[in-house]
Amino acid sequence: MALAQTNNPYLEAMEEDVLYHLGLSTSTHDLAAMFGDIRFVCMGGTPQRMENFAKFIMKEIDHVLQPGTCLQDISRHSHRYAMFKVGPVLCISHGMGVPSMSIVLHEVIKLLSHAKARDPVFFRLGTCGGVDVDPGNVVITEEALDGLLRPVFENIILGKIVQRPTQVDPMVIESLMKLGEKMKFTTVTGRTLCTNDFYEGQGRVDGAFCNYTKEDKMEYMNHLKQVGVKNIEMESTCFTAMTHMAKCRSAVICVVLVNRLCGDQILATKETMIEWQNRPQQLVAAYIKQQLKIETQVPSKSEMFRFGGYEDDQQTERT
Amino acid sequence: MALAQTNNPYLEAMEEDVLYHLGLSTSTHDLAAMFGDIRFVCMGGTPQRMENFAKFIMKEIDHVLQPGTCLQDISRHSHRYAMFKVGPVLCISHGMGVPSMSIVLHEVIKLLSHAKARDPVFFRLGTCGGVDVDPGNVVITEEALDGLLRPVFENIILGKIVQRPTQVDPMVIESLMKLGEKMKFTTVTGRTLCTNDFYEGQGRVDGAFCNYTKEDKMEYMNHLKQVGVKNIEMESTCFTAMTHMAKCRSAVICVVLVNRLCGDQILATKETMIEWQNRPQQLVAAYIKQQLKIETQVPSKSEMFRFGGYEDDQQTERT
Repeated sequence: MALAQTNNPYLEAMEEDVLYHLGLSTSTHDLAAMFGDIRFVCMGGTPQRMENFAKFIMKEIDHVLQPGTCLQDISRHSHRYAMFKVGPVLCISHGMGVPSMSIVLHEVIKLLSHAKARDPVFFRLGTCGGVDVDPGNVVITEEALDGLLRPVFENIILGKIVQRPTQVDPMVIESLMKLGEKMKFTTVTGRTLCTNDFYEGQGRVDGAFCNYTKEDKMEYMNHLKQVGVKNIEMESTCFTAMTHMAKCRSAVICVVLVNRLCGDQILATKETMIEWQNRPQQLVAAYIKQQLKIETQVPSKSEMFRFGGYEDDQQTERT
Repeated sequence: MALAQTNNPYLEAMEEDVLYHLGLSTSTHDLAAMFGDIRFVCMGGTPQRMENFAKFIMKEIDHVLQPGTCLQDISRHSHRYAMFKVGPVLCISHGMGVPSMSIVLHEVIKLLSHAKARDPVFFRLGTCGGVDVDPGNVVITEEALDGLLRPVFENIILGKIVQRPTQVDPMVIESLMKLGEKMKFTTVTGRTLCTNDFYEGQGRVDGAFCNYTKEDKMEYMNHLKQVGVKNIEMESTCFTAMTHMAKCRSAVICVVLVNRLCGDQILATKETMIEWQNRPQQLVAAYIKQQLKIETQVPSKSEMFRFGGYEDDQQTERT
């Protein structure tokens, strides 16, 4: 199995690598001992959502904490991102937008490389606007596009524009789609538009500024529909390009909060929204459970009690 | 005095405006009663730093809470940003990077417009890398530049590239520089480079990927120095362009955490870092105190007890 690959000749010569925004360092933490067993990295926008996901996946994979312990935000001292570890699953918030995603991915890829984690699969579990896709439906990204509809993640490096191809893993997507067929909600695949702004950048007419008409907006939305864009969000180009550069498999799974052909404002009740936001989590949990069963035959909770637990128990909450 | 100006003909016709990422709405909150008295908007990266600033500015301007109350994060239900109100000062986190800044500015500008707040001044209080400027020094932005060294905030709107000029207020900067002369630290002005990435985007050689040499990096850093760039951060183009579009005065004040001509990693101790991070706060607090004294002759704390408090007391913690 492959490791998460950094591509930086200067890293090896560094005496210490401070992962500043994660609140970790190679000199203060034994990263291999802490994170060597990570096989799934699940990322979402807010700390709160990732804490909820950590608690959810703990139940789903029958992961049992040592008595007298609870989950703790590993990156709490950084005040930037939140990170929870549930056995082989790392749950991390990424904030909003490509720059915030970029910072955390640089540090997580270095973290997993230092830890020698084997073949980790990355998931972004998010929310999005739908393009002719109704609220509550889940979209799995086939191709992430930037604001100019190019399948690239563009960055400016030393004053020069650099483009990297966005890339998801077709096998992971196929597995997710198959698992989606058994769910109580609809899952579709399609192209995803990744923007740098939620209002004007996504053609909304309810921002502080709007220099176009509703007709201009609808023309744009219909154009997006014609070229196969199913949803709009704000991190997918960076996420898919950087995980691809690290030679890690990845997928983007987002639930639709509003059909942008019908409106701009997010008006669903809090309860409905929470129910919707759980859907990408259910899909990814099903994938993780399937993978763990296929490869390691994880015992069920009842079996575990019978046999006295499984090895991950010993590795929890050391952080 | 001017109001914060939105520029969107569709806003007036909306029955309800949901400020989704702030957790506020025109139908559930009386925004004019809650925020009509706001005169200063202070923004910084993390929720924690803005909570600390709120507590700090409360002491500085002698703002007294009603007995039995404490500050509360007004946007806590959104899980996206944190917002605290201390009399005429609104303290808001903006996350990391231009997209995160863009979302919160759209909603704060709409908020202050709905509230009819008069002539609010916006401050970004941040951290940055210095270009030949030592850690602990404070840089006030004279001009915010994008990654191609243009004084613009570039966005893609309906598939087209749109550029808006970045603009700070020279009078505010002059006042801040004068106040800085009395401080125990050094304050300088200069151009600020705003990037979309912390690692490759800022020419660091300690990211997960690095396709250039240390020599390339130094050449770039020296070029930045030659064109008058004093510091590098990740939000200033968006902040200065959007506040300018809203016809609001604004300034960017950042403390240097690392001199990028000497290194990439942030190695200062936590205590030192906290001391440094307080410096932009001290400068902005001095400005706010000066303005309040000049225009409203705010009584000192001792006078306040003598006269039985001042009117802002009645408006606190209603949220």
